[in-house]
Amino acid sequence: MKALVYGGPGKKTYQECPKPQIQHPGDAIVKITKTTICGTDLHILKGDVPACTPGRILGHEGVGIVESVGAGVSAFKPGDRVLISCITSCGTCEYCKKQLYAHCSNGGGWILGHLIDGTQAEYVRIPHANNSLHHIPEGADEEALVMLSDILPTGYEIGVLNGKVKPGDTVAIVGAGPVGLAALLTAQFFTPARLIMIDLDDNRLQVARTFGATDTVNSSDGQAIQRIMELTGGMGVDVAIEAVGVPATFQLCQDIVTAGGAIANVGVHGVKADLHLERLWIRNVTITTGLVSTSTTSMLLKTVQAKKLNPSQLVTHRCKLDDILHAYEIFGKAADHKALKVILEA
Amino acid sequence: MKALVYGGPGKKTYQECPKPQIQHPGDAIVKITKTTICGTDLHILKGDVPACTPGRILGHEGVGIVESVGAGVSAFKPGDRVLISCITSCGTCEYCKKQLYAHCSNGGGWILGHLIDGTQAEYVRIPHANNSLHHIPEGADEEALVMLSDILPTGYEIGVLNGKVKPGDTVAIVGAGPVGLAALLTAQFFTPARLIMIDLDDNRLQVARTFGATDTVNSSDGQAIQRIMELTGGMGVDVAIEAVGVPATFQLCQDIVTAGGAIANVGVHGVKADLHLERLWIRNVTITTGLVSTSTTSMLLKTVQAKKLNPSQLVTHRCKLDDILHAYEIFGKAADHKALKVILEA
Repeated sequence: MKALVYGGPGKKTYQECPKPQIQHPGDAIVKITKTTICGTDLHILKGDVPACTPGRILGHEGVGIVESVGAGVSAFKPGDRVLISCITSCGTCEYCKKQLYAHCSNGGGWILGHLIDGTQAEYVRIPHANNSLHHIPEGADEEALVMLSDILPTGYEIGVLNGKVKPGDTVAIVGAGPVGLAALLTAQFFTPARLIMIDLDDNRLQVARTFGATDTVNSSDGQAIQRIMELTGGMGVDVAIEAVGVPATFQLCQDIVTAGGAIANVGVHGVKADLHLERLWIRNVTITTGLVSTSTTSMLLKTVQAKKLNPSQLVTHRCKLDDILHAYEIFGKAADHKALKVILEA
Repeated sequence: MKALVYGGPGKKTYQECPKPQIQHPGDAIVKITKTTICGTDLHILKGDVPACTPGRILGHEGVGIVESVGAGVSAFKPGDRVLISCITSCGTCEYCKKQLYAHCSNGGGWILGHLIDGTQAEYVRIPHANNSLHHIPEGADEEALVMLSDILPTGYEIGVLNGKVKPGDTVAIVGAGPVGLAALLTAQFFTPARLIMIDLDDNRLQVARTFGATDTVNSSDGQAIQRIMELTGGMGVDVAIEAVGVPATFQLCQDIVTAGGAIANVGVHGVKADLHLERLWIRNVTITTGLVSTSTTSMLLKTVQAKKLNPSQLVTHRCKLDDILHAYEIFGKAADHKALKVILEA
């Protein structure tokens, strides 16, 4: 089969690879029908994720059709159409029983396209399939559902739920990339009064307005703090969602959060940041971090089916899987191409 | 009247001062019967709290008898025995309505012995008296109740409640000073499985054992992380309560918290700290900060009356208010004197 293989920092090839086989009774082999590229894949290609070693097939998002299952798989059978969760989880360890699937201690967590071969391929092996796949409802928009592998639950669980967005809140989201926009879409479940989107790119801010942002701030002039304070009567925001992953944006969140407010960090950080405890110790703020557990995927599926959430808005480009190298070029220069998510069809 | 007056960094005098007068209809004048010294007073004397200016009477803890009240005070009358909250609050602003009294926007918050004259005096003026004083029940141990002005609600609200201590949890408290010990006492409301106390001073750790710590770790050998990991089977702790206020102890909390766990910062920090987002972004941790709101003082009073909480354990020394300079010497060299809290009787 063909697959996108990581070759070390800066290197990737689309090449012939062995088709995956059942290795454990809990495994399923899934024939990929649609997959996509994540910002995290670009982090890997930059060399930021040393646990991902050369030779690894990338990708942790996708939908497909079950090809075969191991003897321990009871919830899925060949021919089932499935949504693949970016998080693999046994469902039975101490962490899984707390729905902290991200930290599954039976070889789960984020392993796809990281510690084991991933979804940017014609076939993928999914361990712990019973707990790591979801049935796709009849007639569902499968392109939209690819957004539910990772970015929608990430924006929702790590941004909106961790930040405890409530009706009437003022929420700022720093970073209008796919995950920031996923937070923007799902924050609206809770009817905040104000949703302020902050980014450097006017096109993405324009998109954010069509997605429900009430206000947008282009932070490239260094005046973001002042603008947010003007928008909030000097109070700051109830919830600041960090969806970039660099010290400057985490700092911005510390500067705009109100007393008693929350900073929900969603961004993947490569270096430490300053925490201004000399100012924040007295401010009653809550800061959260996290890798998505995808414990809300079933709920999100229901909201998509009920047309309360439209993740297909995030899809801007479509390619064949065979054109994945071109797709990486588009996604790698997302601003130039006005790209959010690129669907790859196998 | 006599009072302890801050004279700038390193300077304090016990001197004659004018007796406070009613200035606003919400004020009460309270004749102090018992007060105490807080670690924060030492911070002020080091010059760490520049908002506290020379000439200020220090102190934000105490019990006393209402001497007079302004026209707007309905909940208290002269002769009432009262517990003074370290936090002054109007009870009606947006923050107060969220019980975030610490951030009262009508001139409240932590103002006593900071922005207005405090309790280390024969008399004190308490603004917003209706919401900032508590009636002392008949027959209560008033010495014990002085601990409810600040340290018990601080340990409870900012340590235990912010950290969301639950039955069965493993909790580590870094710093066995009065506030850390207050967290230790009140954490037991929720029946954690394990309460690990960490400090540099063996005497304080011994005290912590008598207060309910199941394990103690003297961190002076630099092996605290390893010891905590041994105690927790390599998992780390569910809740780490920081009750010191320096970067090293905040760092220790980051090193010992389990995935999905919480760091509740209680310490007063003078400088920023490193936040290791490059490791923590994926760990699903919650970090909280805060100044106490004393919104739980009434509840804590009930637990004292019901003998579920014994704050008098924290009192190690007693002096006359006239000997306050000697009391500062004892409290300033707490380890040498095996001192926790010093009660000053007026």
